[in-house]
Amino acid sequence: MKLILITNDDGVSAKGLASLIEAMLPLGQVVVVAPDGPRSAQSSALTVTMPIRTKVVSKGENLLLYQCNGTPADCVKIALHQLLDRTPDLIVSGINHGVNSSISVIYSGTMGAAIEGCIDGVASIGFSLNSFAPHANFSQAILYARAIAKKVLEKGLPRNVCLNVNFPETQKIEGVKICRQADGYWEEEFEKRQDPMGKNYYWLTGHFVNSEPTSDDTDEAALAQGYISVVPVKVDMTAYEFMNDLNQWTYELE
Amino acid sequence: MKLILITNDDGVSAKGLASLIEAMLPLGQVVVVAPDGPRSAQSSALTVTMPIRTKVVSKGENLLLYQCNGTPADCVKIALHQLLDRTPDLIVSGINHGVNSSISVIYSGTMGAAIEGCIDGVASIGFSLNSFAPHANFSQAILYARAIAKKVLEKGLPRNVCLNVNFPETQKIEGVKICRQADGYWEEEFEKRQDPMGKNYYWLTGHFVNSEPTSDDTDEAALAQGYISVVPVKVDMTAYEFMNDLNQWTYELE
Repeated sequence: MKLILITNDDGVSAKGLASLIEAMLPLGQVVVVAPDGPRSAQSSALTVTMPIRTKVVSKGENLLLYQCNGTPADCVKIALHQLLDRTPDLIVSGINHGVNSSISVIYSGTMGAAIEGCIDGVASIGFSLNSFAPHANFSQAILYARAIAKKVLEKGLPRNVCLNVNFPETQKIEGVKICRQADGYWEEEFEKRQDPMGKNYYWLTGHFVNSEPTSDDTDEAALAQGYISVVPVKVDMTAYEFMNDLNQWTYELE
Repeated sequence: MKLILITNDDGVSAKGLASLIEAMLPLGQVVVVAPDGPRSAQSSALTVTMPIRTKVVSKGENLLLYQCNGTPADCVKIALHQLLDRTPDLIVSGINHGVNSSISVIYSGTMGAAIEGCIDGVASIGFSLNSFAPHANFSQAILYARAIAKKVLEKGLPRNVCLNVNFPETQKIEGVKICRQADGYWEEEFEKRQDPMGKNYYWLTGHFVNSEPTSDDTDEAALAQGYISVVPVKVDMTAYEFMNDLNQWTYELE
Protein backbone atom coordinates (compact mmCIF):
# COMPACT_ATOMS: atom_id res chain seq x y z
CA MET A 1 0.00 0.00 0.00
CA LYS A 2 1.30 3.46 -0.90
CA LEU A 3 2.29 5.75 1.98
CA ILE A 4 1.43 9.44 1.50
CA LEU A 5 2.64 12.25 3.78
CA ILE A 6 0.49 15.40 3.89
CA THR A 7 1.34 18.80 5.32
CA ASN A 8 0.26 22.41 4.74
CA ASP A 9 0.96 25.95 5.91
CA ASP A 10 -2.52 27.06 6.96
CA GLY A 11 -2.44 24.70 9.93
CA VAL A 12 -4.14 21.56 11.10
CA SER A 13 -7.69 22.97 11.14
CA ALA A 14 -7.73 24.44 7.60
CA LYS A 15 -10.43 23.25 5.19
CA GLY A 16 -7.76 22.90 2.50
CA LEU A 17 -5.96 20.27 4.60
CA ALA A 18 -9.13 18.24 5.14
CA SER A 19 -9.78 18.50 1.39
CA LEU A 20 -6.30 17.17 0.60
CA ILE A 21 -6.87 14.24 2.99
CA GLU A 22 -10.11 13.50 1.10
CA ALA A 23 -8.19 13.64 -2.16
CA MET A 24 -5.41 11.26 -1.02
CA LEU A 25 -7.21 8.61 1.07
CA PRO A 26 -8.33 6.56 -1.98
CA LEU A 27 -4.66 6.34 -3.07
CA GLY A 28 -3.08 4.83 0.06
CA GLN A 29 -2.24 5.13 3.72
CA VAL A 30 -2.13 8.77 4.82
CA VAL A 31 -0.03 10.36 7.56
CA VAL A 32 -0.57 14.07 8.18
CA VAL A 33 2.01 16.20 10.01
CA ALA A 34 0.67 19.75 9.93
CA PRO A 35 1.54 22.95 11.80
CA ASP A 36 -0.54 23.61 14.94
CA GLY A 37 -1.58 27.01 13.53
CA PRO A 38 -1.12 29.27 10.49
CA ARG A 39 2.41 29.33 9.00
CA SER A 40 1.76 31.27 5.79
CA ALA A 41 4.75 32.89 4.06
CA GLN A 42 7.19 30.71 6.01
CA SER A 43 9.09 29.75 2.84
CA SER A 44 11.68 27.03 3.61
CA ALA A 45 12.22 28.36 7.15
CA LEU A 46 13.41 25.85 9.77
CA THR A 47 13.08 26.10 13.55
CA VAL A 48 16.56 26.15 15.10
CA THR A 49 16.20 28.30 18.24
CA MET A 50 13.55 26.22 20.02
CA PRO A 51 12.75 22.51 20.13
CA ILE A 52 10.14 20.85 17.92
CA ARG A 53 7.18 19.07 19.51
CA THR A 54 4.56 16.86 17.89
CA LYS A 55 1.22 15.48 19.11
CA VAL A 56 -1.17 12.87 17.71
CA VAL A 57 -4.48 14.60 16.98
CA SER A 58 -6.41 11.75 15.39
CA LYS A 59 -5.80 8.12 14.45
CA GLY A 60 -7.83 5.78 12.23
CA GLU A 61 -6.98 2.69 10.17
CA ASN A 62 -5.38 4.44 7.21
CA LEU A 63 -5.17 7.97 8.55
CA LEU A 64 -2.85 9.23 11.27
CA LEU A 65 -2.84 12.96 12.02
CA TYR A 66 -0.14 14.83 13.96
CA GLN A 67 0.19 18.50 14.74
CA CYS A 68 3.61 20.12 15.10
CA ASN A 69 4.79 23.45 16.53
CA GLY A 70 7.19 24.06 13.64
CA THR A 71 7.15 25.31 10.07
CA PRO A 72 5.91 23.31 7.06
CA ALA A 73 9.52 22.34 6.20
CA ASP A 74 10.03 21.24 9.84
CA CYS A 75 6.89 19.07 9.51
CA VAL A 76 8.37 17.25 6.52
CA LYS A 77 11.76 16.78 8.21
CA ILE A 78 10.37 15.47 11.50
CA ALA A 79 7.96 13.16 9.66
CA LEU A 80 10.74 11.64 7.54
CA HIS A 81 13.32 11.38 10.32
CA GLN A 82 11.24 10.60 13.43
CA LEU A 83 7.54 9.90 12.91
CA LEU A 84 7.30 7.62 9.85
CA ASP A 85 8.57 4.03 9.95
CA ARG A 86 9.30 4.01 6.22
CA THR A 87 9.98 6.54 3.46
CA PRO A 88 6.70 7.79 1.96
CA ASP A 89 5.95 7.28 -1.73
CA LEU A 90 4.66 10.83 -2.04
CA ILE A 91 4.58 14.11 -0.12
CA VAL A 92 1.73 16.55 -0.79
CA SER A 93 1.28 19.98 0.73
CA GLY A 94 -1.86 22.13 0.85
CA ILE A 95 -4.40 22.65 -0.43
CA ASN A 96 -3.36 26.21 0.31
CA HIS A 97 -5.98 28.90 0.79
CA GLY A 98 -4.51 31.39 -1.68
CA VAL A 99 -2.60 31.09 -4.93
CA ASN A 100 1.16 30.33 -4.99
CA SER A 101 1.94 31.13 -8.62
CA SER A 102 4.83 33.34 -9.87
CA ILE A 103 7.29 34.46 -7.17
CA SER A 104 4.98 33.25 -4.39
CA VAL A 105 6.93 30.00 -4.80
CA ILE A 106 9.78 31.84 -3.02
CA TYR A 107 7.71 32.86 0.05
CA SER A 108 5.16 30.05 0.31
CA GLY A 109 5.26 27.61 3.21
CA THR A 110 3.18 25.22 1.11
CA MET A 111 5.95 25.17 -1.49
CA GLY A 112 8.65 25.20 1.22
CA ALA A 113 7.30 21.81 2.30
CA ALA A 114 7.24 20.46 -1.26
CA ILE A 115 10.78 21.70 -1.91
CA GLU A 116 11.92 20.07 1.34
CA GLY A 117 10.30 16.81 0.24
CA CYS A 118 12.21 16.68 -3.04
CA ILE A 119 15.51 17.64 -1.37
CA ASP A 120 14.91 14.63 0.89
CA GLY A 121 14.43 12.42 -2.19
CA VAL A 122 10.64 11.97 -2.16
CA ALA A 123 8.31 12.92 -5.05
CA SER A 124 6.52 16.04 -3.79
CA ILE A 125 3.69 18.34 -4.88
CA GLY A 126 2.39 21.64 -3.50
CA PHE A 127 -1.30 22.38 -4.18
CA SER A 128 -2.91 25.83 -3.85
CA LEU A 129 -6.32 27.30 -4.66
CA ASN A 130 -6.77 30.82 -5.99
CA SER A 131 -9.03 31.87 -3.08
CA PHE A 132 -8.25 33.01 0.46
CA ALA A 133 -11.80 32.24 1.66
CA PRO A 134 -11.73 29.91 4.69
CA HIS A 135 -14.77 28.07 3.28
CA ALA A 136 -13.67 28.07 -0.37
CA ASN A 137 -15.07 25.31 -2.58
CA PHE A 138 -12.38 22.62 -3.02
CA SER A 139 -14.57 20.04 -4.82
CA GLN A 140 -12.91 20.35 -8.25
CA ALA A 141 -9.46 20.77 -6.69
CA ILE A 142 -9.89 17.47 -4.82
CA LEU A 143 -10.60 15.55 -8.04
CA TYR A 144 -7.66 17.06 -9.91
CA ALA A 145 -5.26 16.81 -6.94
CA ARG A 146 -6.04 13.08 -6.76
CA ALA A 147 -5.51 12.61 -10.52
CA ILE A 148 -2.21 14.51 -10.49
CA ALA A 149 -0.96 12.69 -7.38
CA LYS A 150 -1.88 9.33 -8.93
CA LYS A 151 0.13 10.20 -12.04
CA VAL A 152 3.15 11.26 -9.94
CA LEU A 153 2.94 7.99 -7.98
CA GLU A 154 3.00 6.14 -11.32
CA LYS A 155 5.67 8.20 -13.15
CA GLY A 156 7.83 9.64 -10.35
CA LEU A 157 9.61 13.00 -10.57
CA PRO A 158 13.26 13.84 -11.33
CA ARG A 159 15.63 14.23 -8.40
CA ASN A 160 15.41 17.72 -6.78
CA VAL A 161 12.31 18.69 -8.78
CA CYS A 162 8.81 19.09 -7.29
CA LEU A 163 5.53 20.38 -8.71
CA ASN A 164 3.79 23.68 -7.95
CA VAL A 165 0.11 23.11 -8.77
CA ASN A 166 -2.36 26.01 -8.60
CA PHE A 167 -6.12 25.70 -9.07
CA PRO A 168 -8.20 28.56 -10.51
CA GLU A 169 -11.15 29.68 -8.39
CA THR A 170 -13.68 28.71 -11.04
CA GLN A 171 -15.62 25.43 -10.81
CA LYS A 172 -15.47 25.15 -14.63
CA ILE A 173 -11.85 24.10 -15.02
CA GLU A 174 -10.52 24.15 -18.60
CA GLY A 175 -7.80 21.55 -18.00
CA VAL A 176 -4.17 21.33 -16.92
CA LYS A 177 -1.37 23.52 -18.35
CA ILE A 178 2.36 22.94 -17.86
CA CYS A 179 3.82 26.42 -17.31
CA ARG A 180 6.84 28.41 -16.30
CA GLN A 181 6.93 30.66 -13.23
CA ALA A 182 5.75 34.19 -14.18
CA ASP A 183 8.04 37.13 -13.47
CA GLY A 184 6.42 39.45 -10.92
CA TYR A 185 6.71 41.31 -7.61
CA TRP A 186 4.66 42.90 -4.81
CA GLU A 187 3.84 46.61 -4.72
CA GLU A 188 3.10 49.00 -1.77
CA GLU A 189 3.91 46.57 0.91
CA PHE A 190 3.34 48.13 4.36
CA GLU A 191 0.48 49.80 6.19
CA LYS A 192 1.75 52.15 8.91
CA ARG A 193 -0.28 52.45 12.15
CA GLN A 194 0.21 53.93 15.59
CA ASP A 195 -0.28 51.95 18.79
CA PRO A 196 -2.03 53.50 21.85
CA MET A 197 1.45 54.47 23.19
CA GLY A 198 2.10 56.56 20.05
CA LYS A 199 4.64 54.16 18.54
CA ASN A 200 4.59 53.17 14.88
CA TYR A 201 4.05 49.64 13.68
CA TYR A 202 3.60 48.18 10.20
CA TRP A 203 1.42 45.48 8.66
CA LEU A 204 2.72 43.72 5.56
CA THR A 205 0.20 44.29 2.77
CA GLY A 206 0.16 45.23 -0.93
CA HIS A 207 -0.78 43.58 -4.20
CA PHE A 208 0.95 41.33 -6.72
CA VAL A 209 2.09 42.75 -10.05
CA ASN A 210 2.58 40.39 -13.02
CA SER A 211 5.62 41.79 -14.91
CA GLU A 212 4.71 39.95 -18.11
CA PRO A 213 0.92 40.18 -18.48
CA THR A 214 1.01 39.43 -22.23
CA SER A 215 3.03 36.19 -21.94
CA ASP A 216 0.95 33.10 -22.64
CA ASP A 217 3.19 30.38 -21.17
CA THR A 218 3.22 31.44 -17.48
CA ASP A 219 1.32 30.10 -14.48
CA GLU A 220 -0.40 33.49 -14.14
CA ALA A 221 -1.71 33.25 -17.72
CA ALA A 222 -2.97 29.68 -17.25
CA LEU A 223 -4.90 30.60 -14.10
CA ALA A 224 -6.39 33.70 -15.74
CA GLN A 225 -7.70 31.47 -18.53
CA GLY A 226 -9.33 28.98 -16.11
CA TYR A 227 -6.62 26.31 -16.33
CA ILE A 228 -4.80 24.51 -13.53
CA SER A 229 -1.15 25.65 -13.66
CA VAL A 230 1.58 23.05 -13.11
CA VAL A 231 5.13 24.42 -12.78
CA PRO A 232 8.01 21.99 -12.26
CA VAL A 233 10.18 23.64 -9.58
CA LYS A 234 13.85 22.84 -9.08
CA VAL A 235 16.13 23.18 -6.08
CA ASP A 236 19.14 24.27 -8.14
CA MET A 237 18.84 28.07 -8.22
CA THR A 238 22.08 28.64 -10.17
CA ALA A 239 21.73 31.30 -12.91
CA TYR A 240 23.86 29.32 -15.40
CA GLU A 241 23.21 31.86 -18.16
CA PHE A 242 25.10 34.55 -16.20
CA MET A 243 28.21 32.51 -15.32
CA ASN A 244 30.19 33.43 -18.44
CA ASP A 245 29.73 37.15 -17.82
CA LEU A 246 30.71 36.78 -14.17
CA ASN A 247 33.85 34.91 -15.17
CA GLN A 248 35.10 38.06 -16.95
CA TRP A 249 35.06 40.15 -13.77
CA THR A 250 38.30 41.00 -11.95
CA TYR A 251 38.63 42.28 -8.40
CA GLU A 252 40.97 44.79 -6.78
CA LEU A 253 41.62 44.51 -3.04
CA GLU A 254 41.98 47.85 -1.26
CA MET B 1 27.05 59.17 -3.19
CA LYS B 2 26.09 55.50 -3.40
CA LEU B 3 23.45 54.25 -0.93
CA ILE B 4 24.01 50.75 0.44
CA LEU B 5 21.47 48.78 2.49
CA ILE B 6 22.87 46.11 4.83
CA THR B 7 21.03 43.34 6.64
CA ASN B 8 21.84 39.89 8.02
CA ASP B 9 20.24 36.91 9.75
CA ASP B 10 22.47 36.63 12.83
CA GLY B 11 21.02 39.83 14.26
CA VAL B 12 22.14 43.35 14.98
CA SER B 13 24.90 42.43 17.44
CA ALA B 14 26.73 39.85 15.28
CA LYS B 15 30.41 40.41 14.50
CA GLY B 16 29.69 39.53 10.87
CA LEU B 17 27.33 42.51 10.58
CA ALA B 18 29.89 44.94 12.02
CA SER B 19 32.43 43.46 9.59
CA LEU B 20 30.12 44.06 6.63
CA ILE B 21 29.59 47.67 7.77
CA GLU B 22 33.41 48.06 7.83
CA ALA B 23 33.57 46.59 4.34
CA MET B 24 30.90 48.91 2.88
CA LEU B 25 31.53 52.29 4.55
CA PRO B 26 34.34 53.27 2.12
CA LEU B 27 31.91 52.70 -0.78
CA GLY B 28 29.07 55.02 0.22
CA GLN B 29 26.33 55.92 2.64
CA VAL B 30 25.24 52.89 4.70
CA VAL B 31 21.83 52.13 6.18
CA VAL B 32 21.55 48.93 8.23
CA VAL B 33 18.18 47.30 8.95
CA ALA B 34 18.97 44.11 10.84
CA PRO B 35 16.88 41.68 12.91
CA ASP B 36 16.82 42.36 16.67
CA GLY B 37 18.10 38.82 17.33
CA PRO B 38 19.13 35.64 15.52
CA ARG B 39 17.02 34.68 12.48
CA SER B 40 19.09 31.84 11.05
CA ALA B 41 17.39 29.41 8.65
CA GLN B 42 14.53 31.85 8.05
CA SER B 43 14.79 31.46 4.27
CA SER B 44 12.50 33.98 2.50
CA ALA B 45 9.98 33.90 5.38
CA LEU B 46 7.83 37.00 5.87
CA THR B 47 6.01 38.12 9.01
CA VAL B 48 2.27 38.23 8.32
CA THR B 49 0.63 37.34 11.66
CA MET B 50 2.09 40.17 13.74
CA PRO B 51 3.08 43.76 13.00
CA ILE B 52 6.63 44.82 12.16
CA ARG B 53 8.42 47.35 14.37
CA THR B 54 11.71 49.14 13.81
CA LYS B 55 13.96 51.20 16.09
CA VAL B 56 16.99 53.41 15.43
CA VAL B 57 19.94 51.89 17.28
CA SER B 58 22.72 54.21 16.13
CA LYS B 59 23.12 57.22 13.84
CA GLY B 60 26.27 58.83 12.44
CA GLU B 61 27.00 60.92 9.33
CA ASN B 62 27.12 58.10 6.81
CA LEU B 63 25.83 55.24 8.93
CA LEU B 64 22.28 54.76 10.17
CA LEU B 65 21.47 51.54 12.02
CA TYR B 66 17.97 50.17 12.65
CA GLN B 67 16.88 46.97 14.34
CA CYS B 68 13.67 45.23 13.31
CA ASN B 69 11.56 42.50 14.91
CA GLY B 70 11.06 40.68 11.60
CA THR B 71 12.92 38.28 9.34
CA PRO B 72 15.81 39.25 7.02
CA ALA B 73 13.37 39.47 4.06
CA ASP B 74 11.09 41.70 6.18
CA CYS B 75 14.09 43.94 6.90
CA VAL B 76 14.69 44.45 3.17
CA LYS B 77 11.00 45.11 2.46
CA ILE B 78 10.51 47.63 5.28
CA ALA B 79 13.76 49.39 4.39
CA LEU B 80 12.76 49.78 0.74
CA HIS B 81 9.14 50.72 1.37
CA GLN B 82 9.26 52.74 4.60
CA LEU B 83 12.68 53.61 5.98
CA LEU B 84 14.79 54.70 2.99
CA ASP B 85 14.06 57.92 1.13
CA ARG B 86 15.50 56.59 -2.13
CA THR B 87 16.16 53.21 -3.73
CA PRO B 88 19.57 51.89 -2.66
CA ASP B 89 22.26 51.15 -5.23
CA LEU B 90 23.13 47.88 -3.56
CA ILE B 91 21.79 45.49 -0.90
CA VAL B 92 24.27 43.29 0.97
CA SER B 93 23.46 40.67 3.57
CA GLY B 94 25.77 39.05 6.13
CA ILE B 95 28.53 38.39 6.70
CA ASN B 96 26.87 35.21 7.91
CA HIS B 97 28.50 33.15 10.65
CA GLY B 98 28.37 29.81 8.81
CA VAL B 99 28.57 28.77 5.18
CA ASN B 100 25.58 29.05 2.83
CA SER B 101 26.82 26.99 -0.09
CA SER B 102 24.89 24.19 -1.87
CA ILE B 103 21.24 23.80 -0.77
CA SER B 104 21.76 26.13 2.19
CA VAL B 105 20.72 28.81 -0.30
CA ILE B 106 17.18 27.41 0.14
CA TYR B 107 17.12 27.74 3.96
CA SER B 108 19.40 30.71 4.58
CA GLY B 109 17.99 33.97 5.92
CA THR B 110 21.12 35.71 4.62
CA MET B 111 20.24 34.58 1.10
CA GLY B 112 16.51 35.18 1.71
CA ALA B 113 17.39 38.87 2.12
CA ALA B 114 19.54 38.90 -1.04
CA ILE B 115 16.80 37.14 -3.04
CA GLU B 116 14.26 39.67 -1.74
CA GLY B 117 16.56 42.48 -2.83
CA CYS B 118 16.79 41.28 -6.42
CA ILE B 119 13.02 40.61 -6.62
CA ASP B 120 12.62 44.26 -5.60
CA GLY B 121 14.93 45.30 -8.44
CA VAL B 122 18.11 46.14 -6.51
CA ALA B 123 21.52 44.51 -7.11
CA SER B 124 21.99 42.22 -4.11
CA ILE B 125 24.68 40.01 -2.60
CA GLY B 126 24.66 37.54 0.30
CA PHE B 127 28.03 37.02 2.05
CA SER B 128 28.81 34.07 4.37
CA LEU B 129 31.93 32.80 6.12
CA ASN B 130 32.65 29.09 6.56
CA SER B 131 32.84 29.37 10.37
CA PHE B 132 30.14 29.43 13.04
CA ALA B 133 32.51 30.94 15.63
CA PRO B 134 31.05 34.16 17.11
CA HIS B 135 34.56 35.70 17.06
CA ALA B 136 35.62 34.34 13.67
CA ASN B 137 38.28 36.30 11.78
CA PHE B 138 36.58 38.38 9.07
CA SER B 139 39.65 40.41 8.00
CA GLN B 140 40.10 38.75 4.57
CA ALA B 141 36.34 38.53 4.04
CA ILE B 142 36.03 42.30 4.56
CA LEU B 143 38.58 43.05 1.81
CA TYR B 144 36.99 40.68 -0.71
CA ALA B 145 33.40 41.68 0.18
CA ARG B 146 34.36 45.30 -0.54
CA ALA B 147 36.01 44.39 -3.87
CA ILE B 148 33.04 42.27 -5.00
CA ALA B 149 30.50 44.92 -3.92
CA LYS B 150 32.50 47.60 -5.77
CA LYS B 151 32.41 45.50 -8.94
CA VAL B 152 28.65 44.92 -8.62
CA LEU B 153 28.10 48.68 -8.13
CA GLU B 154 30.08 49.22 -11.35
CA LYS B 155 28.64 46.40 -13.50
CA GLY B 156 25.17 45.78 -12.05
CA LEU B 157 23.44 42.40 -12.02
CA PRO B 158 20.74 40.96 -14.31
CA ARG B 159 17.12 41.35 -13.22
CA ASN B 160 16.05 38.69 -10.67
CA VAL B 161 19.62 37.43 -10.18
CA CYS B 162 21.66 37.94 -6.99
CA LEU B 163 25.04 36.59 -5.83
CA ASN B 164 25.70 33.96 -3.16
CA VAL B 165 29.28 34.60 -1.98
CA ASN B 166 30.92 32.22 0.50
CA PHE B 167 34.35 32.75 2.09
CA PRO B 168 36.56 29.81 3.11
CA GLU B 169 37.73 29.81 6.72
CA THR B 170 41.40 30.06 5.75
CA GLN B 171 43.22 33.41 5.83
CA LYS B 172 45.21 32.32 2.75
CA ILE B 173 42.53 32.80 0.12
CA GLU B 174 43.37 31.36 -3.33
CA GLY B 175 41.05 33.71 -5.25
CA VAL B 176 37.46 33.90 -6.48
CA LYS B 177 35.70 31.08 -8.35
CA ILE B 178 32.39 31.39 -10.20
CA CYS B 179 30.50 28.17 -9.39
CA ARG B 180 27.23 26.35 -9.57
CA GLN B 181 25.25 25.30 -6.50
CA ALA B 182 26.37 21.81 -5.38
CA ASP B 183 23.77 19.06 -5.07
CA GLY B 184 23.48 17.95 -1.43
CA TYR B 185 21.24 17.33 1.56
CA TRP B 186 21.25 17.03 5.38
CA GLU B 187 21.50 13.69 7.17
CA GLU B 188 20.25 12.55 10.65
CA GLU B 189 18.37 15.66 11.41
CA PHE B 190 16.78 15.45 14.90
CA GLU B 191 17.99 14.80 18.41
CA LYS B 192 15.18 13.42 20.61
CA ARG B 193 15.09 14.46 24.30
CA GLN B 194 12.63 14.21 27.17
CA ASP B 195 11.52 17.22 29.21
CA PRO B 196 11.14 17.00 33.04
CA MET B 197 7.42 16.20 32.50
CA GLY B 198 8.36 13.11 30.47
CA LYS B 199 7.31 14.53 27.11
CA ASN B 200 9.45 14.21 23.98
CA TYR B 201 10.95 17.15 22.14
CA TYR B 202 13.38 17.37 19.23
CA TRP B 203 16.31 19.58 18.32
CA LEU B 204 17.12 20.03 14.66
CA THR B 205 20.69 18.82 14.09
CA GLY B 206 22.66 16.66 11.60
CA HIS B 207 25.40 17.18 9.06
CA PHE B 208 25.54 18.23 5.42
CA VAL B 209 26.27 15.63 2.73
CA ASN B 210 27.72 16.76 -0.62
CA SER B 211 26.07 14.49 -3.22
CA GLU B 212 28.78 15.19 -5.81
CA PRO B 213 32.10 15.25 -3.95
CA THR B 214 34.14 14.64 -7.12
CA SER B 215 32.66 17.55 -9.12
CA ASP B 216 35.09 20.41 -9.59
CA ASP B 217 32.72 23.22 -10.61
CA THR B 218 30.57 23.49 -7.46
CA ASP B 219 30.65 25.98 -4.59
CA GLU B 220 31.55 23.13 -2.22
CA ALA B 221 34.61 22.26 -4.31
CA ALA B 222 35.78 25.88 -4.50
CA LEU B 223 35.56 26.32 -0.72
CA ALA B 224 37.36 23.02 -0.10
CA GLN B 225 40.21 24.29 -2.29
CA GLY B 226 40.50 27.59 -0.41
CA TYR B 227 38.64 29.73 -2.98
CA ILE B 228 35.80 32.17 -2.44
CA SER B 229 32.73 30.68 -4.14
CA VAL B 230 30.43 32.99 -6.11
CA VAL B 231 27.16 31.45 -7.32
CA PRO B 232 24.74 33.60 -9.34
CA VAL B 233 21.29 32.76 -7.91
CA LYS B 234 18.06 33.28 -9.81
CA VAL B 235 14.48 33.74 -8.65
CA ASP B 236 13.00 31.70 -11.49
CA MET B 237 12.89 28.16 -10.08
CA THR B 238 11.21 26.60 -13.15
CA ALA B 239 12.70 23.22 -14.13
CA TYR B 240 12.51 23.97 -17.87
CA GLU B 241 14.29 20.72 -18.76
CA PHE B 242 11.36 18.68 -17.37
CA MET B 243 8.52 20.55 -19.09
CA ASN B 244 8.46 18.41 -22.25
CA ASP B 245 8.11 15.20 -20.23
CA LEU B 246 5.35 16.71 -18.10
CA ASN B 247 3.48 17.77 -21.23
CA GLN B 248 3.08 14.09 -22.18
CA TRP B 249 1.16 13.24 -19.01
CA THR B 250 -2.63 12.72 -19.09
CA TYR B 251 -4.98 12.73 -16.12
CA GLU B 252 -8.08 10.70 -15.30
CA LEU B 253 -10.63 12.17 -12.90
CA GLU B 254 -12.27 9.60 -10.59
